[in-house]
Amino acid sequence: MYIYVDISENEEQDIEFDHFQASKMASKLHFFLLLSVSCAYLQISMAGDPDILTDFIFPPIFFGPPGDYFTFTGMRSLVSAPFPTTFKVLKASMVEFPALEGQSVSYAVLQFPKGTVNPPHTHPRASELLFVLMGSLQVGFVDTTNTLFTQTLQQGDIFVFPKGLVHFQFNCDAKNAALALSAFGSANPGTVKVPSAVFNSTIDDQVLALSFKTDVATIQKIKSGLSG
Amino acid sequence: MYIYVDISENEEQDIEFDHFQASKMASKLHFFLLLSVSCAYLQISMAGDPDILTDFIFPPIFFGPPGDYFTFTGMRSLVSAPFPTTFKVLKASMVEFPALEGQSVSYAVLQFPKGTVNPPHTHPRASELLFVLMGSLQVGFVDTTNTLFTQTLQQGDIFVFPKGLVHFQFNCDAKNAALALSAFGSANPGTVKVPSAVFNSTIDDQVLALSFKTDVATIQKIKSGLSG
Amino acid sequence: MYIYVDISENEEQDIEFDHFQASKMASKLHFFLLLSVSCAYLQISMAGDPDILTDFIFPPIFFGPPGDYFTFTGMRSLVSAPFPTTFKVLKASMVEFPALEGQSVSYAVLQFPKGTVNPPHTHPRASELLFVLMGSLQVGFVDTTNTLFTQTLQQGDIFVFPKGLVHFQFNCDAKNAALALSAFGSANPGTVKVPSAVFNSTIDDQVLALSFKTDVATIQKIKSGLSG
Amino acid sequence: MYIYVDISENEEQDIEFDHFQASKMASKLHFFLLLSVSCAYLQISMAGDPDILTDFIFPPIFFGPPGDYFTFTGMRSLVSAPFPTTFKVLKASMVEFPALEGQSVSYAVLQFPKGTVNPPHTHPRASELLFVLMGSLQVGFVDTTNTLFTQTLQQGDIFVFPKGLVHFQFNCDAKNAALALSAFGSANPGTVKVPSAVFNSTIDDQVLALSFKTDVATIQKIKSGLSG
Amino acid sequence: MYIYVDISENEEQDIEFDHFQASKMASKLHFFLLLSVSCAYLQISMAGDPDILTDFIFPPIFFGPPGDYFTFTGMRSLVSAPFPTTFKVLKASMVEFPALEGQSVSYAVLQFPKGTVNPPHTHPRASELLFVLMGSLQVGFVDTTNTLFTQTLQQGDIFVFPKGLVHFQFNCDAKNAALALSAFGSANPGTVKVPSAVFNSTIDDQVLALSFKTDVATIQKIKSGLSG
Amino acid sequence: MYIYVDISENEEQDIEFDHFQASKMASKLHFFLLLSVSCAYLQISMAGDPDILTDFIFPPIFFGPPGDYFTFTGMRSLVSAPFPTTFKVLKASMVEFPALEGQSVSYAVLQFPKGTVNPPHTHPRASELLFVLMGSLQVGFVDTTNTLFTQTLQQGDIFVFPKGLVHFQFNCDAKNAALALSAFGSANPGTVKVPSAVFNSTIDDQVLALSFKTDVATIQKIKSGLSG
Repeated sequence: MYIYVDISENEEQDIEFDHFQASKMASKLHFFLLLSVSCAYLQISMAGDPDILTDFIFPPIFFGPPGDYFTFTGMRSLVSAPFPTTFKVLKASMVEFPALEGQSVSYAVLQFPKGTVNPPHTHPRASELLFVLMGSLQVGFVDTTNTLFTQTLQQGDIFVFPKGLVHFQFNCDAKNAALALSAFGSANPGTVKVPSAVFNSTIDDQVLALSFKTDVATIQKIKSGLSG
Repeated sequence: MYIYVDISENEEQDIEFDHFQASKMASKLHFFLLLSVSCAYLQISMAGDPDILTDFIFPPIFFGPPGDYFTFTGMRSLVSAPFPTTFKVLKASMVEFPALEGQSVSYAVLQFPKGTVNPPHTHPRASELLFVLMGSLQVGFVDTTNTLFTQTLQQGDIFVFPKGLVHFQFNCDAKNAALALSAFGSANPGTVKVPSAVFNSTIDDQVLALSFKTDVATIQKIKSGLSG
Repeated sequence: MYIYVDISENEEQDIEFDHFQASKMASKLHFFLLLSVSCAYLQISMAGDPDILTDFIFPPIFFGPPGDYFTFTGMRSLVSAPFPTTFKVLKASMVEFPALEGQSVSYAVLQFPKGTVNPPHTHPRASELLFVLMGSLQVGFVDTTNTLFTQTLQQGDIFVFPKGLVHFQFNCDAKNAALALSAFGSANPGTVKVPSAVFNSTIDDQVLALSFKTDVATIQKIKSGLSG
Repeated sequence: MYIYVDISENEEQDIEFDHFQASKMASKLHFFLLLSVSCAYLQISMAGDPDILTDFIFPPIFFGPPGDYFTFTGMRSLVSAPFPTTFKVLKASMVEFPALEGQSVSYAVLQFPKGTVNPPHTHPRASELLFVLMGSLQVGFVDTTNTLFTQTLQQGDIFVFPKGLVHFQFNCDAKNAALALSAFGSANPGTVKVPSAVFNSTIDDQVLALSFKTDVATIQKIKSGLSG
Repeated sequence: MYIYVDISENEEQDIEFDHFQASKMASKLHFFLLLSVSCAYLQISMAGDPDILTDFIFPPIFFGPPGDYFTFTGMRSLVSAPFPTTFKVLKASMVEFPALEGQSVSYAVLQFPKGTVNPPHTHPRASELLFVLMGSLQVGFVDTTNTLFTQTLQQGDIFVFPKGLVHFQFNCDAKNAALALSAFGSANPGTVKVPSAVFNSTIDDQVLALSFKTDVATIQKIKSGLSG
Repeated sequence: MYIYVDISENEEQDIEFDHFQASKMASKLHFFLLLSVSCAYLQISMAGDPDILTDFIFPPIFFGPPGDYFTFTGMRSLVSAPFPTTFKVLKASMVEFPALEGQSVSYAVLQFPKGTVNPPHTHPRASELLFVLMGSLQVGFVDTTNTLFTQTLQQGDIFVFPKGLVHFQFNCDAKNAALALSAFGSANPGTVKVPSAVFNSTIDDQVLALSFKTDVATIQKIKSGLSG
């Protein structure tokens, strides 16, 4: 969605000005200008969950009957596809379904084979309202006073995970899968997966060892398990 | 949720001041003061979908394990109950599930027996994201330029009805029921049912006849059908 | 404000690839790209009633003294023009007066000849604050519990129609016209006219007959009156 | 709307604890508790222009037909009253018209006898949309880059003063009065009158002399003119 | 801030109704009612970072000169106190400084002795703008695509940690302490400390082992280090 | 940030249409079109302090390591530079530090040599939270009821100036400088300097004389002092 142009190494050497270089630079800039222009629409589309000033944001060009723009068919596959063997999330957020922009709501389907977990994570931009369609789930969240709130949910139950708090779901059933639908109060809730964000994003071992009050070896053990 | 005290008729006569009356008034006021105090919490709970300043709004008193406050079990009945014979909505909004306050999201389950319709309506405070769990539905909404956007949805499809616009769903299948789950981008989306709001709320016949460019007899015919 | 390109009929036949076609397509795409770029500003201008990050949003190019951008003269005509013979609305919202973008306020002037009605409608994005400048009006709105709130207003009275609720105004005076000014808490409140949205937007007769619990003939009668 | 209790002088002496004092304190606290409870509703009513979670905020107790709550008759006096001889503002904001709470809109009527001015001021919580109903007005505002935007308005013209910026209106006509209606995008826009806030609020002379790069005598001259 | 009343164990036995019990219950309810009333103000104070409808929210009762309400002196101690020997945070948020309610801004002072770390954490309700007043800091945050953004800051540098994302600060200097001031775009940003929230909040070992793709022994090792 | 094209003088003469003129116009329009397109990104960047729908808004093109985008080094100069001899403000708001867009927070460093004042001003889009790092300050603000709230702050004290209200700071110490850091609850709070906005923005002398209830000579005296 964005582009880094690292000029730190090569181009700093070319400090003497020459026309060839300038023309190369100009053409580069021209390219970036075009890029910038073509990115503009994208960029715009991403500004602001709060109330829009129109009924909806329709794209400047749309092929097909207009009703199609408001329809998302990406979950149809769920009807016939076999249940996955690992925990799996299917999203219908603004990225997959652009009509959601400015409408402040989105969905995710969560499939839990027996004994699987949706690891601790947060959604920076929305609360999550989880509806258990099939099976049962152990769920929990931790508030900003470090208090854990847990529940065992059965089919038909709904649970709310407040905005921005660490939470998880676990299908502890040894035999049966569980299926849940989650609604979010934002078109683009975002997900911060704690194990990945902390242990699989190249944060320095020493920082982590100090943070988790453990030794570097333990940190490296967890890191290798997650990156494997 | 609020109380009208119509003093227009009786009490205007008691215009001469006497102590008995004053004391009755005082005791009345005292009652209202108490009422007002006990209503205060309710009232507060209703101010503002936008971001809250705490993780969540926990009630001053709650009986039971705290995790229960974040759990809604009112949909469990759906699992075993027989399918209804008329169109039926079950809600999990702030009224039924107070933990949603400040979390900007809610649910409704829509049950459509064969050939039934969810009549034209609007939600003043939220967009609706409808997920077809079973069967098929004809849906549509009308924007503020009076353009109709329609779609025929099948199982697994998702459709977004933008905030505040008139929309409907119709299960035109002559044999099979349809089941849908709707998520809303507000804890209390509210519903304005067009047929009831317009023809079953005692709006004057003449106003309606002029508005719909028809005669009073036609208005009365529709009114009697809806109120029956 | 947006463009549908329905390719469903003709172009699906051209399934065999040929260069002429491809070049035509490319030129078409080029055209759309240009279009998209030139639409970009428009699109942007429409995102978000909430607080802006600048004092105001001035257009990239403006001909004339800058104070003119903040002035709307479209209502001057009211001063000298004869009173209309049917109910008429003149708006000063973001569409007619772009300086309102980001300022969360707009106006409409309502002219009611004797015996005319402003039919039931809603504003999806704002409350309406109506000020009776001349004559008298019967007004009403219906809340989400289907309760009707009415009033008879005289010159100088102000009435508030809460956001998103169905409301109407009626000048029942058989002799005198009425004039009202309405302020809205959004630069683009939008209007959903119930008679048009429901009966003049090609919603299926059967859906409407079921919704209004009446027969198709009655629906068609109302439809023909409104479309005539 | 709030209460200061300055205990700095007397009560600090009573540092030795005795029961009489404690009981007095307790009774005082009891009084404050009651006060606090009875103030609670007021306090609540004042939190938050943004979207409310209900159609409107109806008071716990209301005497009279419910439609009256949504009606403001305080401007009726304008119809028959003689035009004032000094500049005068009549407001219909949340304070005068509580039904506006949560509806994000309010009104003010501005009456300008010939040659009068509405001095430079700002509205911290809303833009102002001024409609000239009678006469003509010279208006202006200064943006945060210190640029002045001015206009001469005639009957029927509308001008927008962006949120939070210093602005003024002046009826320079030597013979005729002017009348304007202003709408605001908040139920409680607030007004900071620059002459009063700066020169009639007991800010120290020295601070003002330094701020306006003038001598204390000039500051005192302006102060005496404004307080007189 | 809230109260759990767990009646699951004892009181379920008292299933036979008797008057003594009822009266006890009533008195209990009475107590809770009082509690609820006295909590009301607190509760209210916590609803909503977004725009308030008043200049500020002054308490119903305040002892001392009103200017004191807007002053926070809790950081004075920093001036003379010795530098701490472990990482330490001093906050001036809505809890410590109630005048911040509705003003959408708060502070924290961060003191880093040599070699100390502020472990990975998120602020659910605000971005953080860190200003290095003394020393140097290694900082970083991870976005929702799991990309790490890092920087080495020196005295006078400012770094922004976007809302809701995992971030940390580390004073890797072996000799010198570092001091930073952080501003937040909310009166109550909240903090989710990842090590505590995940490993010191009684989340089940099995859930964590599955989540971090490691064995229960490693989880228990980290847990014991953190709880020690 | 915007461009006025005043065609009032020259071009009105060219009222007879000729092709040369038309082509010039076309080329002019072409230029403006390009301009408009290249301004588009800028324009977009300026819409909306409220919640964004992404973690942050990264520019389409950025040269250097991505962490640099989130770092502001413009205050480093403060560390070594000599203290100024007049009151001086250094800002780190959205203009100087674009990464702040959508993060709702910004900084300013305030340097007060002995005896200097930061004149009365308002911030239209944010509250200010002032932290005294060195020296002492007399501060004050005036609310919308024209009440002055003052305080004398010492090193380590924090004071909040509510959004949109007139306020000032004064270092009355005859010997020592004062240094303060201010945080704002907006990425672009904006500043309306009262002396400049009112007396140095070309508002008409007569308007000001009437507003401040003084004579034109006094107004002109203040004006000349400020513009000098």
